[in-house]
Amino acid sequence: FVGAKANDELLKLETDPNQWVMPTHDYAAQRYSTLTQITKDNVKRLHPVWTFSTGVLRGHEGAPLVIGDVMYVHTPFPNIVYALDLNHEGRVIWKYEPRQDPAVIPVMCCDTVNRGLSYAGGKILLSQADTTLVALDAKTGDVVWQVKNGDATKGETSTGAPVVIKDKVLVGVSGGEFGVQGRMTAYNLKDGSLAWKAASVGPDEEILFDPQKTLSLGKPVGANSSLSTWEGDQWKIGGGATWGWISFDPKLNLVYYGSGNPSTWNPAQRPGDNKWSLTIFARDADTGVAKWVYQMTPHDEWDYDGVNEMILADIPVKGKPTKALVHFDRNGFGYTLNRETGELLVAEKFDPKVNWASHIDMKTGRPVVVAQYSTQLNGPDHNSEGICPAALGSKDEQPAAFSPKTGLFYVPTNHVCMDYEPFKVSYTAGQPYVGATLSMYPPKGDSNLGNFIAWDASAGKIVWSNSEPFSAWSGALVTAGDVVFYGTLEGYLKALDAKTGKELYRFKTPSGIIGNVMTYVHGGKQYVAVLSGVGGWAGIGLAAGLTKGTDGLGAVGAYKALSSYTQLGGVLTVFAVD
Amino acid sequence: FVGAKANDELLKLETDPNQWVMPTHDYAAQRYSTLTQITKDNVKRLHPVWTFSTGVLRGHEGAPLVIGDVMYVHTPFPNIVYALDLNHEGRVIWKYEPRQDPAVIPVMCCDTVNRGLSYAGGKILLSQADTTLVALDAKTGDVVWQVKNGDATKGETSTGAPVVIKDKVLVGVSGGEFGVQGRMTAYNLKDGSLAWKAASVGPDEEILFDPQKTLSLGKPVGANSSLSTWEGDQWKIGGGATWGWISFDPKLNLVYYGSGNPSTWNPAQRPGDNKWSLTIFARDADTGVAKWVYQMTPHDEWDYDGVNEMILADIPVKGKPTKALVHFDRNGFGYTLNRETGELLVAEKFDPKVNWASHIDMKTGRPVVVAQYSTQLNGPDHNSEGICPAALGSKDEQPAAFSPKTGLFYVPTNHVCMDYEPFKVSYTAGQPYVGATLSMYPPKGDSNLGNFIAWDASAGKIVWSNSEPFSAWSGALVTAGDVVFYGTLEGYLKALDAKTGKELYRFKTPSGIIGNVMTYVHGGKQYVAVLSGVGGWAGIGLAAGLTKGTDGLGAVGAYKALSSYTQLGGVLTVFAVD
Ligand SMILES: O=C(O)c1cc(C(=O)O)c2c(n1)C(=O)C(=O)c1cc(C(=O)O)[nH]c1-2
Ligand SMILES: O=C(O)c1cc(C(=O)O)c2c(n1)C(=O)C(=O)c1cc(C(=O)O)[nH]c1-2
Repeated sequence: FVGAKANDELLKLETDPNQWVMPTHDYAAQRYSTLTQITKDNVKRLHPVWTFSTGVLRGHEGAPLVIGDVMYVHTPFPNIVYALDLNHEGRVIWKYEPRQDPAVIPVMCCDTVNRGLSYAGGKILLSQADTTLVALDAKTGDVVWQVKNGDATKGETSTGAPVVIKDKVLVGVSGGEFGVQGRMTAYNLKDGSLAWKAASVGPDEEILFDPQKTLSLGKPVGANSSLSTWEGDQWKIGGGATWGWISFDPKLNLVYYGSGNPSTWNPAQRPGDNKWSLTIFARDADTGVAKWVYQMTPHDEWDYDGVNEMILADIPVKGKPTKALVHFDRNGFGYTLNRETGELLVAEKFDPKVNWASHIDMKTGRPVVVAQYSTQLNGPDHNSEGICPAALGSKDEQPAAFSPKTGLFYVPTNHVCMDYEPFKVSYTAGQPYVGATLSMYPPKGDSNLGNFIAWDASAGKIVWSNSEPFSAWSGALVTAGDVVFYGTLEGYLKALDAKTGKELYRFKTPSGIIGNVMTYVHGGKQYVAVLSGVGGWAGIGLAAGLTKGTDGLGAVGAYKALSSYTQLGGVLTVFAVD
Repeated sequence: FVGAKANDELLKLETDPNQWVMPTHDYAAQRYSTLTQITKDNVKRLHPVWTFSTGVLRGHEGAPLVIGDVMYVHTPFPNIVYALDLNHEGRVIWKYEPRQDPAVIPVMCCDTVNRGLSYAGGKILLSQADTTLVALDAKTGDVVWQVKNGDATKGETSTGAPVVIKDKVLVGVSGGEFGVQGRMTAYNLKDGSLAWKAASVGPDEEILFDPQKTLSLGKPVGANSSLSTWEGDQWKIGGGATWGWISFDPKLNLVYYGSGNPSTWNPAQRPGDNKWSLTIFARDADTGVAKWVYQMTPHDEWDYDGVNEMILADIPVKGKPTKALVHFDRNGFGYTLNRETGELLVAEKFDPKVNWASHIDMKTGRPVVVAQYSTQLNGPDHNSEGICPAALGSKDEQPAAFSPKTGLFYVPTNHVCMDYEPFKVSYTAGQPYVGATLSMYPPKGDSNLGNFIAWDASAGKIVWSNSEPFSAWSGALVTAGDVVFYGTLEGYLKALDAKTGKELYRFKTPSGIIGNVMTYVHGGKQYVAVLSGVGGWAGIGLAAGLTKGTDGLGAVGAYKALSSYTQLGGVLTVFAVD
């Protein structure tokens, strides 16, 4: 039985600190490595040992995989995959370069990024920009099977990393800025045939809800829980894309991920809560049926996609050992939930400048919105000023890390506010369906656009915070050597003392870092690796050659100064202590 | 008087080891640094300290300049110039990106390379691909003046580095594969106005020859020395491009450079010696008038351009202190001449596998051609096989270095042979005018495509030779620390013991290296820097995405395996010993 085999293999591999087998490092998405060769005492002696240019210029998100002696490196569009020989400083064993219609490029909202590959049972899984999901033979790079997961001519694209869970490959879809109907799809690992498909918005049978059993804050959602929160057929172009990270609890057999913004960005065009956009889903891994859901931001007025990673950690919350799910949302609140039941335990601001809501009502789970910053209340064609955070959130796709050793979460954050002016927009398939003009800037009185913070998810409190000139748009890694790593948009790989946040090392890589730091062992020696290659939403000005402040969905202005620090170029840098 | 000032400034700066002010390091093109912080004993502790991606993918030749606290980095087409702040690990002070018609790209024979910038009197000089020569304000990057040096629609392009000599900027032209009439042009540094222009082929007044005074091997050349060696008007599309390096002897007031192949590559179409293609020119710096010339390969039958660098060194030759010019020619012979008189002193093979000529007749200066390898004798539509070296020579543009300390020349070489089949071709302005099909491969019995050698220019002998899997297509640097540096096409920066050739250090940079290694001091510390970014003629398969063996003027086949080692991407890597 293939499924069980793939599952067992991955469950074993994810705990082997020598390897890096999935985009989230482990199913719990903790990005914690038990390796201890590199420590807070010797990390100052870190330096690059070899490097590899990917030959692709735009934003490089995600992290390579390491399985045995081979490293698998992916690129943004055209989504090349390289198998690199670790025995020979990255010699190319094979290269897979799909042919994709470049017409997909302008249909990608936030740069032509790709967040990585998965591995299982001798296959490498890649989700191409044009939504083709491909299984490659890990040894040869030959295509084993491929399947089309969406239609780019309708604005469906892919940036997320597929994840293998048991005998299935799960993959989301992008297109919240093009009015897609978001969904999570599971394909059979064996042959790419469809296993299940669960929409974010729509009728119960499409969203795979059991009205009696699917819970929200402990209560059954009831029939038509999504449909009843939309006007007419708007849900059909209602967004809730699923372009973020996917976690899995094998014991609970639950898959976790979040959904994106409801379409359009003009809230006046979609009255209601717009369920289940901006929602955490806990679904049965085998059937896709939702066990529980939690909508963080009902009736989005700010583009606060809920897709950021769900970190699964067994931690004490208010003194009680808890199977927790910790989530740093775009909306600026750090949530701690019971991942078995979906019960809301903690919801606190992880950036003190967050102002759009005063707090989360812990009974209803709803944010208490501050009228001044409500683009719904202010209405279309009114420019609501000084909203914090900006649309790209207090944190975006850049994943945080959790150290069971320190008990802390390490969170790369944005520190950005915005003006937001919604306007009426009509839907045309494959055309932008945005309906708002934005501009972004640091919070009043501040000049930094980011912070790298340590977070106590039990108390909902910042433990320490390092300011960053630009947003920290790179995924964090924390190790048992008590070192936390991340990259900066200027291009620095940084290593901090996991306890104190003190900077211990920095190195200027060839380009801005929006990739996620990873670590592995080869030949008995610990390495740290990261992709540089500036881009993503924060780097869209550089990546797409835009200069007008409100271009790039409003992000260009805030990050304009980035071009004084770095330029485009995808390069893997591998570090070691010698 | 501006000219004298510029001259004095550069004469001072070129001897300041902290700076790197010209593309050849110094006017003598020795590429020798007197710096001694990095030595053969500590170079094993070298490692990258910061890096900078240029945002451009194709082949990166040449080296950055360092003047004071600023490093100036250039790129291949579109020929961006960055001024980087050395006080802040390469922060971008300014960026200059010219607008150029991309139609110039297919008119460049051997990748869209550019060999670098020059500095003088507060200006940075750039020769763009489209032959626009630009003077930029070194502080701001603003254009001070610009002048068009050629016509890309006729196949005139530029890859060479301009050089400032006294009050003039000298710049050559590319297009030997497009039937241009090669020439060296001097513009006034002050305002870009024309000072003098000296063609390689044509009437005496165009080539600036004095029939009575211009010497060849000690004798006046006489009237019409070029015209009389061409049939009819063929000289007008006769090539002799000037795309290589330029040297200068301030005491002799002589400028040295070489000319490229006569057009076409089919020798049957141009009977005669085709003077002065494949020639070393020594010209008066003020007037451009030739003092002496030496044609290395009369009536080219193999594309043995004579543009490789002229290294000026005062060395004993056969026991006598000599003002020498040392030149490693494409044709596989290492020449030592008296640079004052043009007298030929030594001419020996620097690759033992060279077979097209048995030797150079030291009386006439002419090679003694081996009939079997004469594509003229074998005639058009005959495939002459096993000619060594291949068209890209035993060495191409990659410059050698000379250490006055060891007395040795360090030469990155090619070890490649070819089949060459000429065919009739007719001339159309702006279209390739090649007329030969080539394929390339290592010499029989060998698998290496290159060697890095130490050369005794007095005896004309190899002192040591390290084999390289691919050609060594990167410029060498040698220092008073007795370390010699160069890069490899796979991407390794290598450091060798200058006396023994023993490898002391290697580092795999992001992409293949065809740039020239340079060194400088900043804040009291010695750095070594190099541009990686595979391409050039050897890397044309990768750079232009060609896969057919005879594509890229025959170079694609030999270097096919390169894609298993490296991919495109321009990155500056800066090293230090810590
Ligand atoms: O709604 C969507 O479909 C969608 C897709 C993507 C994407 O696929 O990258 C992003 C977003 N939204 C988005 O809101 C966002 O902030 C964002 C940032 C990035 C990035 O990679 O830097 N992608 C996306
Ligand atoms: O005849 C010419 O005009 C011309 C131009 C160039 C050039 O401009 O790069 C090269 C050559 N020829 C050439 O023969 C050659 O081997 C060559 C190598 C390279 C390179 O940069 O790797 N350029 C050129």
